[in-house]
Amino acid sequence: MKVFFIGGGNITRIVLEKLGNRIERCWYYDLEEKQIPCQFIGNSFHVPVEADVVVEAASVEAVKTYGIDVLKSGKDFYVISSGAFADEEFTRKFAEALKHSPSRVFVPSGAVGGIDIICALEGYLESVKLRTRKPPTAFGMDSNSISEPCVLFSGSVYEAIRNFPQNINVAVTLALAAKDFNKVRVEVLVDPSISQNIHELEISSPVGNYKLVLQNKPSPNPKTSYLAPLSLVAALKKRIEKFIVG
Amino acid sequence: MKVFFIGGGNITRIVLEKLGNRIERCWYYDLEEKQIPCQFIGNSFHVPVEADVVVEAASVEAVKTYGIDVLKSGKDFYVISSGAFADEEFTRKFAEALKHSPSRVFVPSGAVGGIDIICALEGYLESVKLRTRKPPTAFGMDSNSISEPCVLFSGSVYEAIRNFPQNINVAVTLALAAKDFNKVRVEVLVDPSISQNIHELEISSPVGNYKLVLQNKPSPNPKTSYLAPLSLVAALKKRIEKFIVG
Repeated sequence: MKVFFIGGGNITRIVLEKLGNRIERCWYYDLEEKQIPCQFIGNSFHVPVEADVVVEAASVEAVKTYGIDVLKSGKDFYVISSGAFADEEFTRKFAEALKHSPSRVFVPSGAVGGIDIICALEGYLESVKLRTRKPPTAFGMDSNSISEPCVLFSGSVYEAIRNFPQNINVAVTLALAAKDFNKVRVEVLVDPSISQNIHELEISSPVGNYKLVLQNKPSPNPKTSYLAPLSLVAALKKRIEKFIVG
Repeated sequence: MKVFFIGGGNITRIVLEKLGNRIERCWYYDLEEKQIPCQFIGNSFHVPVEADVVVEAASVEAVKTYGIDVLKSGKDFYVISSGAFADEEFTRKFAEALKHSPSRVFVPSGAVGGIDIICALEGYLESVKLRTRKPPTAFGMDSNSISEPCVLFSGSVYEAIRNFPQNINVAVTLALAAKDFNKVRVEVLVDPSISQNIHELEISSPVGNYKLVLQNKPSPNPKTSYLAPLSLVAALKKRIEKFIVG
């Protein structure tokens, strides 16, 4: 697999390490050169002609700035910063460009799971509720100032993003899987009984009801859970493996 | 998409209904002709040359009997009866045939979910526990004869299959996703407080801990949950869609 990475940071480093010699050649674009075993193309953006696949491992802004250029290249495009698709104007342009491109776009499951359930429920899904619990310190609160869990926010994905932009990729990936932003509700709680973030998902449908409790442990980069880059690795492996589960 | 189905029963019917005109042409093999909008190839097994993809929607036995013929045809192969891969002798032969075939094999998530998490945890997974709770009637017990949940079985996937063959596909799909049958433990409980089956999954790893509670509602065919054929539909859609989540 010949991979072009947008971004030469932590996520690219993890993908390179995990895929090892399954990556025959790689390039990356970034604002400045990084210490990674991958060819820097300089800070003028272009998709190398020889690449099989483009991986965005940078930011919502990078997807918005370069996403349509990737589709013009015709390469398949893996997007980790799904939050870009919360911008309706960008998404409209991107969808239009995708129609006229041979590219396929892959959004890995990211820092949550159970996306397989939501996809299978297409046509039956009633609602998805994402409840994120965080310790008081995550909100700059004193742990002693609060004695029991308290809902800080409850609303739509769009409202959640305005108020709690840290969760943008998780909320938008759920909404994309649901194929309807209105089916996803987001709640944010401060919970003095926990020391790490917990995501809870409740998926309702006439086919069944599903509940997930996801407790990601701290990763080398505390801003993103390690599960997110690992889900990108899994998505890229599915591209080349011959026996695919899930 | 031109699809050849092994089996003309309930699952094939659901896939035909859900994929609609995205299936340009279809054939099926079965022991006898069924009333479905699909061409019966007769009861002598062969893979139609024009098919793009082969879908097993029949049984563990069908996978074992015809699976290697499918690989010889070079077509991509979707397997719903993953339980076939609990047969080590068959799996060894199948893996060998797959090496020499251009086919790719897809095992959809089936009646559970969170397979996306297990796949992402490759190299980090410590254990997966599948706990299946069923009401007393599911075991032919009188509801009044038991007052609280009771563990009927706890053991490996192979032991679980011998004792509770009804769960074979769920247990084996988890084991295949884990890439190690020994990492999956199965518990079966009789629970007088419930009226429908509940699957619980506990996934442990240094990346995070994940718990899922899956409550499938009764389906037209009570022996399989509706989520399983829907996960097959989702897997087939991923083949043709341009924007893929999860």
